[in-house]
Order: sequence, then C-alpha cells, then structure tokens
Amino acid sequence: MNNLDLIKEISISSPTKIVLLVIDGLGGLPNPKTGKTELETAGTPNLDQLANKGICGLIDPVSPGITPGSTPAHLALFGYDPLRFNIGRGVVEAMGIDFDLKPEDIAARGNFCTVDKAGLVTDRRAGRISTEKCAELCRLLDGLVIDGVKILVQPVREHRFIAVFRGEGLEPGVSDSDPQKVGIAPKTVTALNPQAEMTAAIANKFIAKAKVVLAKHSPANMVLLRGFSRWPGLPTMPEVYKLKPAAIAQYPMYRGLAKLVGMEVLETGTTIEDEFRTLKQNYNNYDFFFVHIKETDSAGEDGDFDRKVKIIEEIDKALPALTSLKPDVIVVTGDHSTPALLKGHSWHAVPILLYSKWCRPDRVERFSEAACILGGLGRLPATQIMPLAMANALKLAKFGA
Amino acid sequence: MNNLDLIKEISISSPTKIVLLVIDGLGGLPNPKTGKTELETAGTPNLDQLANKGICGLIDPVSPGITPGSTPAHLALFGYDPLRFNIGRGVVEAMGIDFDLKPEDIAARGNFCTVDKAGLVTDRRAGRISTEKCAELCRLLDGLVIDGVKILVQPVREHRFIAVFRGEGLEPGVSDSDPQKVGIAPKTVTALNPQAEMTAAIANKFIAKAKVVLAKHSPANMVLLRGFSRWPGLPTMPEVYKLKPAAIAQYPMYRGLAKLVGMEVLETGTTIEDEFRTLKQNYNNYDFFFVHIKETDSAGEDGDFDRKVKIIEEIDKALPALTSLKPDVIVVTGDHSTPALLKGHSWHAVPILLYSKWCRPDRVERFSEAACILGGLGRLPATQIMPLAMANALKLAKFGA
Repeated sequence: MNNLDLIKEISISSPTKIVLLVIDGLGGLPNPKTGKTELETAGTPNLDQLANKGICGLIDPVSPGITPGSTPAHLALFGYDPLRFNIGRGVVEAMGIDFDLKPEDIAARGNFCTVDKAGLVTDRRAGRISTEKCAELCRLLDGLVIDGVKILVQPVREHRFIAVFRGEGLEPGVSDSDPQKVGIAPKTVTALNPQAEMTAAIANKFIAKAKVVLAKHSPANMVLLRGFSRWPGLPTMPEVYKLKPAAIAQYPMYRGLAKLVGMEVLETGTTIEDEFRTLKQNYNNYDFFFVHIKETDSAGEDGDFDRKVKIIEEIDKALPALTSLKPDVIVVTGDHSTPALLKGHSWHAVPILLYSKWCRPDRVERFSEAACILGGLGRLPATQIMPLAMANALKLAKFGA
Repeated sequence: MNNLDLIKEISISSPTKIVLLVIDGLGGLPNPKTGKTELETAGTPNLDQLANKGICGLIDPVSPGITPGSTPAHLALFGYDPLRFNIGRGVVEAMGIDFDLKPEDIAARGNFCTVDKAGLVTDRRAGRISTEKCAELCRLLDGLVIDGVKILVQPVREHRFIAVFRGEGLEPGVSDSDPQKVGIAPKTVTALNPQAEMTAAIANKFIAKAKVVLAKHSPANMVLLRGFSRWPGLPTMPEVYKLKPAAIAQYPMYRGLAKLVGMEVLETGTTIEDEFRTLKQNYNNYDFFFVHIKETDSAGEDGDFDRKVKIIEEIDKALPALTSLKPDVIVVTGDHSTPALLKGHSWHAVPILLYSKWCRPDRVERFSEAACILGGLGRLPATQIMPLAMANALKLAKFGA
C-alpha cells in the first residue's frame, strides 16, 4: 500500500483547521561575513514563539541532494510523491497562466521563433518579442480546429506561449519539434508509441498552418513546441484527505497547481497582508489553507541576501493575523531552499515548524536551519508533512486493529 | 522513477572534484573502561577540523539493524541500492584479481581445502597454503573443458582462487559445494532452478576432476566452491553520474568492485601515505576519487581496539596530503561499523562528514559517533551520499520545472 492509499483509508472529515504557510525558497546558506543564514539573520519573534511552542525539523523536498523545481517541490508538500507524479513542461506552463486545463487536454510549451528562407531556425526566441506582440500572434492561432481537435493558444511571456490540444483520441507521447539549437530546421513531431500517432499528425499540421499564418510576422515567423503532456490523473486532496482545501497564492503557477490537486483558489491581493486578510475572510468556509509567499524565493534567486531577510521579517510581523485565528494546526516551511549565495533553488534541507495542541513540543526555541537540526521531527521527506498535519488535527483514524 | 534513473537524468559533467575517503569499518562501540569508541578515543585534529567546517551525520549502510558485507556496503556508498543489486561473491573475487570477466561467464569463489580418506573436510583452508602454491595448483586445473564449457582457474591469495565457467547455456542459480564447516563432506552442487541444471552438472564434474588432479597435493587435496554468480548489468558510475572516477585501494576486492561500477583502478602502494600520494599524482586526470583504507576494519575484526585507534590516528595525520589538494567536495565515512568489541562487521550507523563550500555547516566540532548524532545531515541511508556529494559539487541540475 502506498502512502496516499493509506491516508485515504484512514482520513476523517472534521471541523478542525490546518494552515500550511509556504515561504517559497525559505532555506538558505550562511552569509560568509556572519555565519548566519537569511532566516538566522532575520528577527522573527513570532515564528520563534511558534517554534518554541511547536515541534521542528528539516525536510527534504525530494531526497537528499536533489534540487527541485517548484512543481515537484509543491507536490511533495501536498503529500504526493514527486518521483511518482512527474508533471510535464506543457502542463506546468498551462498552470502558470491559470489556464483551465481539462483532464484530457494535451498541453505543449511553445516558443515563437525565427526561421530563414531555407526554413532553418536562426533565433529560437524570435528576438524575445514583447508579451503584447506574443498575445497578438496567439490570437491569430487560437481556436484552430484540425481533424476535429481544437487547438487553444495562449500567451505566457515574451516569446513563450502554450498550445493546448483538446479533442478525442489524443495521447501525449510525442517528441518535441524544438531542435534546441539554431542552424537546423524544426523537427517533425513523431509518435513515441503507436497510440500517439494521431496527436503527432495533428501537431505537425498545426505547425505547418502556423508557419503559413506567421509568414509575414518576422522575426516571429515560426513556432517550436516541446513538452507535450497531460495532467497526471492524481487523486485530489478532497479525495485523499477528505479536506475542503483553499489556496491563497498570488503567482499563477501555484494557483494552477493548487487547482489541479483539488483546492479552491481564492482571489487575493499582492501583499503578505492581503493574503492573510483573504485567509481571515474565508476562514469559516474551508478546513485547509495553503498560503503561499513567493517573494523570499525571488529575493534568493536575485542573490539579494538582505532583501530575503527583510521579507522574512515582514512575514513574521504579519504573522499574528494568522495565529490570532487559532488554527488547530499551523505548519510553516518552504518548498525548497533558495540561498542568496547560490542565486537559485538548492538541495539543502528546509526548516519546518508544526504547531498544534497535540504536537509534543521539542526544545527548539528559534525557527532557524541550525535550531531545526535538533528538532523533534528530525529530518524527513516533505511528503510526510501532510500526514503529520492531519494527525495533529485529529483527522486520521487508527491504522489496523 | 528510481533514484539512479533520476540522477542519470540530472547529472552534469563539470571540472569540480569529489574525494570519497572510505575508512573501512570506521564505526565502533565504546570501550567499557572509558565509554569512548575507537574514533572517540583517537586524537584526530584534522578530521575534527573538517567536521567543524563541514556537515555531519550518521549513515545506515543498508537499513537500521542490517550488518552488511563489504560488497553491499560499498555498492550503497556508490549510490546503488544494495537490495536491488545483489552481487555474487564469485564475481567480486574475479574482479578483485583483474580477471577479464565476460558478461555471460559464471564465476565461483574457490578454496583449496583438505579432505581425509573418508572425503570429509578437515581444513577448509588447506592450512592456508602460500599464494605461490595456490598458483601452482591453479595451473593444474586451469583450462579444463567439460561438456563444451571451459573452466578458467586463477589464484587469488593463499588458499583462495576463482573458477570461471565460460560457455553456452550456463545459469548462475546453483548452490555452493562449500559446507562452511569441517567434519562433513563437500556438498553436491544443485540447481536452484531448472535452467541451471547443466551448470550444476558441469560444476560437479569439475569438482570430481579436481579431486583426482589434487589427490597427491595434500593438504590442498580438494576444492570448495561457493558464490556462483554472473556480472549483474548495473549501470556504471560514468553512465549514472557522468563522472570520470578513479579508485585507490590496496585490496583486490575493493579494486574489483570499483572496476565493476566503472571506475579506473589506479596502481598504488601498501600504506596510507602511498594511497594519498597516488591521489596527488592522478589528481588532474579524474573528477571523482574513491580512496579505500582497509586496516581499520582488519583491526576491528581482530578485536584490537588500540590498533584501530592507532590506524585512525595515522589516517588523521596523513590527511593534509588529501585536504591540501582542495577538492571541491570531501566525504569521509566508513562502509560499515566494525567494533573491536564485536570482532566483526556490525549494524551500527557510521559517522559521515561532508565538506564543501556549499555544505551549510552544522554545529558539530568533532568527528565521532556521538557528535555526528547532532549533525545537519541527520541519519540517512548510505545510498544518499553520492547525490549529496554530487549536489555539493554543483554536478546536479534541477529536477522538474
């Protein structure tokens, strides 16, 4: 029996409430001048108080040494094994723009590109055309119907778009047309298994049609497609956990992912205070809240140690708006580490604190990487957070007699 | 997706260098007089300094409670699940003497032994005959052809040799002839599955022939065979990790195993200083070095607490020859524990330290069993060392988008 099946069997619906606060890219590396990480540098009296009353530890998003993208990292936080449920690039892009992806849709990531008279790619990004230009070109291609399959084309950003194939008999097992380098022609999309031959044929017809439509729009006179994929049919959070879950997130990708695991996505503003206000306003209507704060990750990616510290302090300052609601279980963690020193996601384990009336507190008095090493949760895979949160909300029955 | 497939997908070739120093049987148990283990008794200023700058933890070679042999323990260190890849003793011995094993060959480990007139084993090791004598006897048996199968017989050391069966239709699923005790006759080799019946028959004919040939060579007047096995087709380290790996080890078994996973085996001398000199001489030609020190395990097996302490101190003293090369990642650990008090391998978790620029140091200031309990790596399976080392060498790309 895998973990999801186990939880599905023993989960119980109840009035208790869980808040999972995800501080994106929370974990860091020590500033060489001070020996302290971003979190250790920040003044965080409210998080420290919660750590003091709660139980702490360190999580591995996938497994030790593995640096995760946002999608696998969040799937793990929601309790889904990210190696079992591998989500294709096309689906990720569609989620990123809040596209209403249907279970049978095949999504591909697209680039507008430039080809010369011989049809060879000279620029894979068409000179990075503006997002407005991209939207204009997408409108020329959106809604085409080929052999009964409708192709929905939506802009993402600059030269990037998504192409979603909607119709019967489609299969995602097809190769990319994007050759990943210049000086050669776009590749023909080919079926990787016999069931996908129709999809490959339709993709090639769409690409041929796009070439005709775009002929006069140089430098964006051709398209490249890659990452054809379908949403993997993973069980939703209401099915597995018997929760009524809501997501509070500004960024489209996290909203899209939340929707696909069965959360309701709430409208919210652009600040931390906005997100906590949305939590308060909707507090009575759900029993699980995923609250996502993106700015810490952005600061880490920018290599801005001080800004990451400042954002952590802002979160801490705003925290009473969350704690004053007195959720039965509060979990604070990150989806992965984004050390400013590395300017990107990393493999380092992420601090976690879990507070509930039933958590068996440890001796950790400070929410930090170093303090969490000695926490009562030890070092655990991120997929085990949800079972722990559910247990602490008394939403899991006994396993076995 | 299993872990090796994941690593293969995201590993990157780069100029950074990793040194994995394996102190065989490193972990110990406290001396009842002092309450300190071998490692805790030894003065190890250099290892302590590395632990202080690095991140520490405890590894389980297979899983808690399992005492591993050298082969599964090393496979785990190299990142291969030792329960998935079970390698027979015959293959390991063959690799250990640089034998050119073919994929279809069946290798068995052999002992020259002594049998009495009734055919009962009186000494499983024939009085530990000299390696020279062993070689002389092997020449008498080498190259026999039985039912179209050629049997290659090569000396290993003292009474030990290998017998390699080469021909068509062979299968490794046969039982040992070695009864593992004296006072009884060698066992008949039997097929463990119907496909292996021919192999069993040929093995028995070979043993009968050997008995005739050796009749006048008492005490080495018979052979015992065990560990019939074939090369398991496991992916090599260059394939999985995109490394150019080298092994520095004196003992044939470790050299053989290293070759099996795709390392180049370097010629080296018999002392710790020799091994570190070999490392220095070859430092520019490889990006991964497995350096193996055997004597700690031998001392533990002999129950010699003080000698094990002394060897650990010698390693520590020699360590600057390694650290002065400034590898990007240094891992120091053992393949398993060999407490002098138990006079053998044990199940106890093994201290590990990992040093790199990106390791996020913990508060451990001493390389010891007790200190490593509080390390930032926590307690982890040995198979996760390689992903961590690769990550710290910035040789792993992000998983997923």
